[in-house]
Amino acid sequence: MRALASIATRQGVFQVRRAIAEDVAHILELLGDDPIGSLRETGADERTAAAFVAIDADPNQLLIVVVDGWEDVVATMQVTFIPNLSRNGTLRAQLEAVRVSAELRDLGLGSALLRWVLDECRRRGAGLVQLTTDKRRDGARRFYEAHGFVASHEGMKLELG
Amino acid sequence: MRALASIATRQGVFQVRRAIAEDVAHILELLGDDPIGSLRETGADERTAAAFVAIDADPNQLLIVVVDGWEDVVATMQVTFIPNLSRNGTLRAQLEAVRVSAELRDLGLGSALLRWVLDECRRRGAGLVQLTTDKRRDGARRFYEAHGFVASHEGMKLELG
Repeated sequence: MRALASIATRQGVFQVRRAIAEDVAHILELLGDDPIGSLRETGADERTAAAFVAIDADPNQLLIVVVDGWEDVVATMQVTFIPNLSRNGTLRAQLEAVRVSAELRDLGLGSALLRWVLDECRRRGAGLVQLTTDKRRDGARRFYEAHGFVASHEGMKLELG
Repeated sequence: MRALASIATRQGVFQVRRAIAEDVAHILELLGDDPIGSLRETGADERTAAAFVAIDADPNQLLIVVVDGWEDVVATMQVTFIPNLSRNGTLRAQLEAVRVSAELRDLGLGSALLRWVLDECRRRGAGLVQLTTDKRRDGARRFYEAHGFVASHEGMKLELG
C-alpha cells in the first residue's frame, strides 16, 4: 500500500497510509489500549472483519494508519466525509477512533497526523471538521482546542438495545 | 416517493419519506428558521443542489422529510450510517440537521419521528446512535436525554479556512 504522506518527528519518520485488512488487529489493539477503550474493545473477529470491508468499500470513509520503520502500526484515525445541506451545502469531515500508541503519545506525532488530516480534508473540499471526545479523556479536549477546535456542542450517544 | 412511515399525532397524520430534490428549498427553510440557523443558512443554489445529489447517491445517507396533509415539509433529519471497527465493529448511526417546523414544535411530532428513526437504525443493524447538539440550544439536550441519549462527549467543530 502506497504511503499517503511521511511524518518526520524527533522519534523518526513515520508513514501514513490507508489501512488494509491485515491492520485491523493492530488498530483494535490501539483502540483498546486505554482505560475507556479496554472496557469495550475486543479482538479481531468476523464482525470487525466485516466492518473493515464496509469501511474500505465506502468512498466517504478514510481509515488510516501510521506505521513506524518496522511497519508497526503506531497511530490510527477514521475520517468520514458527510455531504449535507447545512451551511450552504458544506461538506463535513468527521474524525473518529483517533489513537496514538502509548509510548509515542504527547511527542508530536498526533499533532503532525492531525495537521496532515486537516489538510487532506481541505483538499477534498470539506469546510467543517467535527469530532466528539469522551468527557473523561483528560487532555484530549485541550489537544483539539490547541488545533482550533471549539467545544461548542454536546456529544450525545445512545446504545440501542 | 413512497412513504416510509406514517406518524399519527394530535395535530394529524404525517408521512415520513426520503427527501427528493424538490424538497431541498423547504429543508433549508426549516434549517434556517431559528436564531442559530438563520445566521448561517442561505437558500437553495447550485452548491446545495450538488450536496443533495451527493447525499442521495450515498447508500449510507438517509435524508428524510416529514410532510403534512398538504405535502408541506414540516420536519427533517439526516441519518448517516458509519461502519467502524470500534466496539467490536458496531455500526453507528449519526443524526444531523434535525428540525421540526416552529408551529409543530413540542407537540409530539419530533418525539414520534425520533422513535421511528431509532427503530429504523436498529432495523439496519446499528448498535449506537450519536449526535451533537449546540450547547446554546436550550431544550434540545433535554429532548434527547428524555429519549435515552447521554451527553458523555464534547462535540467539537473546526471551520476550515
